Amino acid sequence: MSNTYVVILAGGAGTRFWPHSREDKPKQFLDVLGTGRSLLQMTFDRFAQLCPAENILISTNEKYEDLIKEQLPQVKSGNILFEPVRRNTAPAILYAAVKINSLDPDAVMVSAHSDHAILDEQAFQQVATKTLSHAGEIDGLFTIGVKPTRPDTGYGYIQYQTDTDPSPVLNFEEKPDLTTAQRFFESGDYLWNSGIFIWQIKAILHAFEQFLPDTTKVFEKVKRDLGTEGERLAVHNVYSQAEDISIDHGIMEKAENVFVVPGDFGWSDVGSWNSLHDIRKKDSDLNVLDGNVVVYDSNDCMVKGPGDKLIVVEGLEGYVIADHGNALLICKKENEKKIKDMVVNVRENNPDYS
Amino acid sequence: MSNTYVVILAGGAGTRFWPHSREDKPKQFLDVLGTGRSLLQMTFDRFAQLCPAENILISTNEKYEDLIKEQLPQVKSGNILFEPVRRNTAPAILYAAVKINSLDPDAVMVSAHSDHAILDEQAFQQVATKTLSHAGEIDGLFTIGVKPTRPDTGYGYIQYQTDTDPSPVLNFEEKPDLTTAQRFFESGDYLWNSGIFIWQIKAILHAFEQFLPDTTKVFEKVKRDLGTEGERLAVHNVYSQAEDISIDHGIMEKAENVFVVPGDFGWSDVGSWNSLHDIRKKDSDLNVLDGNVVVYDSNDCMVKGPGDKLIVVEGLEGYVIADHGNALLICKKENEKKIKDMVVNVRENNPDYS
Repeated sequence: MSNTYVVILAGGAGTRFWPHSREDKPKQFLDVLGTGRSLLQMTFDRFAQLCPAENILISTNEKYEDLIKEQLPQVKSGNILFEPVRRNTAPAILYAAVKINSLDPDAVMVSAHSDHAILDEQAFQQVATKTLSHAGEIDGLFTIGVKPTRPDTGYGYIQYQTDTDPSPVLNFEEKPDLTTAQRFFESGDYLWNSGIFIWQIKAILHAFEQFLPDTTKVFEKVKRDLGTEGERLAVHNVYSQAEDISIDHGIMEKAENVFVVPGDFGWSDVGSWNSLHDIRKKDSDLNVLDGNVVVYDSNDCMVKGPGDKLIVVEGLEGYVIADHGNALLICKKENEKKIKDMVVNVRENNPDYS
Repeated sequence: MSNTYVVILAGGAGTRFWPHSREDKPKQFLDVLGTGRSLLQMTFDRFAQLCPAENILISTNEKYEDLIKEQLPQVKSGNILFEPVRRNTAPAILYAAVKINSLDPDAVMVSAHSDHAILDEQAFQQVATKTLSHAGEIDGLFTIGVKPTRPDTGYGYIQYQTDTDPSPVLNFEEKPDLTTAQRFFESGDYLWNSGIFIWQIKAILHAFEQFLPDTTKVFEKVKRDLGTEGERLAVHNVYSQAEDISIDHGIMEKAENVFVVPGDFGWSDVGSWNSLHDIRKKDSDLNVLDGNVVVYDSNDCMVKGPGDKLIVVEGLEGYVIADHGNALLICKKENEKKIKDMVVNVRENNPDYS
């Protein structure tokens, strides 16, 4: 639809795919799925099916400007929204909303992360189209929820009223412990929070005025510069005054008119080597082998190397082996939560490798 | 001593240190001990203490000419003896012997491998000096034997008469099975065969005439070319006619006048990643970490990487991790015998990495 606008949030910094992800090249810029396209590029391709490509905005940190331009050369400069400092998702989405409002006050807006995977693109297009249609008709804040396939403790959950369409959201729940996750999973009235939001531009601006009035005032200062050469500097000058808060905490959990549309489209936030292993196609020994890899007597491994390097693995069960540039990681898959600490340690002691 | 001459045998080709050792750069050219010097360079340095450096000959395969010249620039061209085709140690030693005979018919000659490690250089100098002295006085074929420190099944053994000095050799034994190795180890009258031989040039030439007369005749054809510009071509033309046999099988096991001098100088043939792990200094968790390596919850590992690459290892026990150039090997240390087959497989399927 020509009044559909999308903002792709591409400012995140991650360490969990180290050594493939680095400070200067986080996950969204990596081809973690082995498709030849980065997660950001796949996200762009996905939304370019829902609206004109020129209606897609990319919100990112100034340090990733070159990577964005390299990976998405078709996006014109004016569609890249720079956050000079990190302020979580609420300010990034508000900036995009005021920008879209200046282009089309009747727009329906989509906000999505750049670094998630969607395996069933067709199913996603269907649920997104349906949600866009709902959002065009109803003055509500819509989120797309994912039907859980396991009691995952790494995701936020949404409790919803299952017998209506669209379904009002009853509760947003933080990442639960395993017992709680089990209960959510078995109950049938909880969905995973995918972080994909859809709303009329009027609806989200109204919600910001109501729940984050100070931050709303910050972005009023840039309105007259939007679309001019002065936009970037104007935003740069005020951005740090915005509240450092997520859209979930700042808006969604407070608003009354929140709806969710359930979907089942192979979604993952690809938050770790483990979750990448989960969603990737495996060989008969449950190995995911990405690159030029030969394995003997090994199973349940996630191996990712550069295509021009031969990796020979013998006798390993349940390991991540990630070889990239000037660093190699070999780590038990079950201990992957240690990776964050290990990378913090790398950053402190070996900054050249971080 | 000025009449001491040494030939260092540097023609071997090995696969067991893959990916560090490659077809075009076998073990003798690698700094496996992490000293900054290759095994060949360390061997040269060792014998340069026993005789004038210009008395040291290097026997090698033609394909390693550039590596020899790069690693031993102090060796003049005339001291490098090229084998155009592989014919095991007997022909290589005979070529060196006729060459040395042309320089000094009263020479005492040492033959040694280029790719073994000696950890106690001082103890080695003592036993070598003693053996040179015996060999200068007695018309025998001397070998230096190593006092076994364990019932190793990877070495050949020498049974000797322990109550005389020098000690006549009673028997050469091939690599034994574990029970036999245990018996040898406990008996006290067996030594490891180090492959270091010392003899008067007259004695070894006489032994060749007696036990390998055909091969002796082959090298008679090159005598008049030795030391001339025509030497290399003359050798090239006849070398393939020499018998493909080791000095052990061809001479030592047949001769009657064979003596052994026992020594205890931290010798290893460094035949595998395992044996390298055995002889290298270990950290408190029994890891050998060579390169820029950080380990967590890991022990008994042999890790070797390039110094400019950060290797992070978590949760591994008893593994070889070898990262070099365009290849990475991760393999259970106890399964290292599979490495040979794995490398054969690499050579067949991925010749660029072999």
